[in-house]
Amino acid sequence: MPQEFKRQYKEILEQYTLRQTEHNLYEGQNFSRQLIQKNISPEEVISIHKASLEEIIPNLSADVSHSFDLLIEVMIRYGLALKEHQTLIKKQE
Amino acid sequence: MPQEFKRQYKEILEQYTLRQTEHNLYEGQNFSRQLIQKNISPEEVISIHKASLEEIIPNLSADVSHSFDLLIEVMIRYGLALKEHQTLIKKQE
Repeated sequence: MPQEFKRQYKEILEQYTLRQTEHNLYEGQNFSRQLIQKNISPEEVISIHKASLEEIIPNLSADVSHSFDLLIEVMIRYGLALKEHQTLIKKQE
Repeated sequence: MPQEFKRQYKEILEQYTLRQTEHNLYEGQNFSRQLIQKNISPEEVISIHKASLEEIIPNLSADVSHSFDLLIEVMIRYGLALKEHQTLIKKQE
């Protein structure tokens, strides 16, 4: 994932952990549109979420950190299904 | 998400937070195949991950809990893209 996305996501997440506003959620929705356009996979999103959270909460427990690795593993198949989708769409163009 | 999936996921996650073995990751991969077959959306997976983690770690910090709500919001668009994919596939059958 490009560094710029990582920086942006961390900023949105940091704001959201401070105050859970509708505006922050809305920013998250808009951001995900950009991510999909740039073919960022869902497992990459989880990965960036994990890295951002570790920076925002320096004493994040190891259990929480590890838990993301399982979530990334589960998301990989979702990423493959999406890639298949993008290939299908290209074929139809 | 059916209660049975939730129970299964929590069990895999609990094992994985205790010892991070390749076998647990493999179970996660297999599990995600079932989830996709049952049309469980990626945002539902994040939701079940959050709920499971809150049960496994009762004193999970509020920041971590909140952070998942943003992740769910970001994943909704991925879920929509996948649904589009499933509709396309059905049309081609």
